Amino acid sequence: MDKNINIEKNLAPIGIFDSGVGGLTVAREIMRQLPNESVVYFGDTARVPYGSKSQGTIIKYSRQIVRFLMTKKVKAIVIACNTASALALEELQKEFDLPIIGVIKPGAKTAIAGTVTRRIGVIATEGTVHSQIYTKVIHQYDPDAVVISKPCPLFVPLVEEGWLHDTVTDEVARRYLSEFDDKNIDSLILGCTHYPLLRNTIKKIMGSRVNLINPAYETALSLRELLCTHNLASPLQTIVDSHMHQFYVSDTPEKFMAFGNSIDLPFYIEKVEQINIESF
Amino acid sequence: MDKNINIEKNLAPIGIFDSGVGGLTVAREIMRQLPNESVVYFGDTARVPYGSKSQGTIIKYSRQIVRFLMTKKVKAIVIACNTASALALEELQKEFDLPIIGVIKPGAKTAIAGTVTRRIGVIATEGTVHSQIYTKVIHQYDPDAVVISKPCPLFVPLVEEGWLHDTVTDEVARRYLSEFDDKNIDSLILGCTHYPLLRNTIKKIMGSRVNLINPAYETALSLRELLCTHNLASPLQTIVDSHMHQFYVSDTPEKFMAFGNSIDLPFYIEKVEQINIESF
Repeated sequence: MDKNINIEKNLAPIGIFDSGVGGLTVAREIMRQLPNESVVYFGDTARVPYGSKSQGTIIKYSRQIVRFLMTKKVKAIVIACNTASALALEELQKEFDLPIIGVIKPGAKTAIAGTVTRRIGVIATEGTVHSQIYTKVIHQYDPDAVVISKPCPLFVPLVEEGWLHDTVTDEVARRYLSEFDDKNIDSLILGCTHYPLLRNTIKKIMGSRVNLINPAYETALSLRELLCTHNLASPLQTIVDSHMHQFYVSDTPEKFMAFGNSIDLPFYIEKVEQINIESF
Repeated sequence: MDKNINIEKNLAPIGIFDSGVGGLTVAREIMRQLPNESVVYFGDTARVPYGSKSQGTIIKYSRQIVRFLMTKKVKAIVIACNTASALALEELQKEFDLPIIGVIKPGAKTAIAGTVTRRIGVIATEGTVHSQIYTKVIHQYDPDAVVISKPCPLFVPLVEEGWLHDTVTDEVARRYLSEFDDKNIDSLILGCTHYPLLRNTIKKIMGSRVNLINPAYETALSLRELLCTHNLASPLQTIVDSHMHQFYVSDTPEKFMAFGNSIDLPFYIEKVEQINIESF
């Protein structure tokens, strides 16, 4: 009996959420690294973006989303959004009785592990930068590390406009990243899920001596560790096929589906369902 | 008795709403042209922007806002947001029993009145352009007019970044507005409340032969007409001072207040209150 209940729990899906489509880059990494796990993804496309909104609002929205994901019997939750990780993770961990992780700590850990100069750059939304969360978490590991943060509010709309390789984007990036001139950083955290899509532009400006850190990769590793610690991992022989993953959004599904199917997920998204998130 | 009730109604405020701060440019015009009227403004700063969201979502949000404004006993409502005017006005007019106007029709009328070539350009959000509302309304007045529309999704984030006079904004504007090369338009509707703040940039590119139309001005005139028709105008001797205007938002007030006090309103905004719009 007990054993059955455990198996049911171990086979339960992972909940992942983001303010919109960006968190799919985190979902992609989780699907690659944990191929035995199924996923319930929620993108808050009706209320996107989160980056410029207040902590109270982000906590309220995140709480509604966790309540929704719990109706899908998820065994753990990954906040794939940097802003929500920065502003709401701590509160959600207090309120809910299931394991919840964000993308900040994994990103910060990778930066600390790799830096030689102990001078780390962070680019993110205004909300994330204003919260100083990366600085706080990095200082837990190395109190003497220097963290230099810069909000880049035009990056998300430029990505959504599709201007990934473009002279305008180059100029905007040059301006934002000039913040790091003569700062001697050797690591730069891409602290917003859209930013890895501008990786080439950022790399060109920052040069080869600065290591660009995408927290998605390390987040998937942290999730694996979390599932093991809580004895929640899906059995290795579990075969997950595409229809076992579920996708939900708060606005109409079309744009989300088009974006999702353009970023090289391990499979094709066939179905996206719109739900009324305000009712949770 | 009847007379008292009428006076109470005539002294009631005008409700104005927008997805965020942009609609303050419309409120400003109304305050200038109708100095005897007081205003209740709501900016949906927690769910901004509306421009890329679906019609169903915009109707739902607008409906909640009208319900809220009605608790403030407004006598009429102005939808200061182009996207909400495009996607929700018709539905709201059906559902609610008070006069509601948007910014589309006034802008379209001005364009028709002024055009000689009968070729009119419209720049707006994706939602507004996709709805083809300006084309439909212009064709009600002149079925043979040619309307050429272009979405400019980066304009709002550029304005919010404060890059009003900037080489990046120039280049982005040049690219978007190249849509109108050789199209022989003589009128261009600024179909989003943020765009008049880029007026100088747009003027420089379009040249002096193209008339830029800001629907805010004409919307205030339409509102005056509407109040007269419904016998709802405030008596001419009414003295409105700044504390009679009310401002509400769905996210924290600070940013809204800072923006509002930077755009040359007829008075200083002293108080902005945050409300839970989802509960309406």
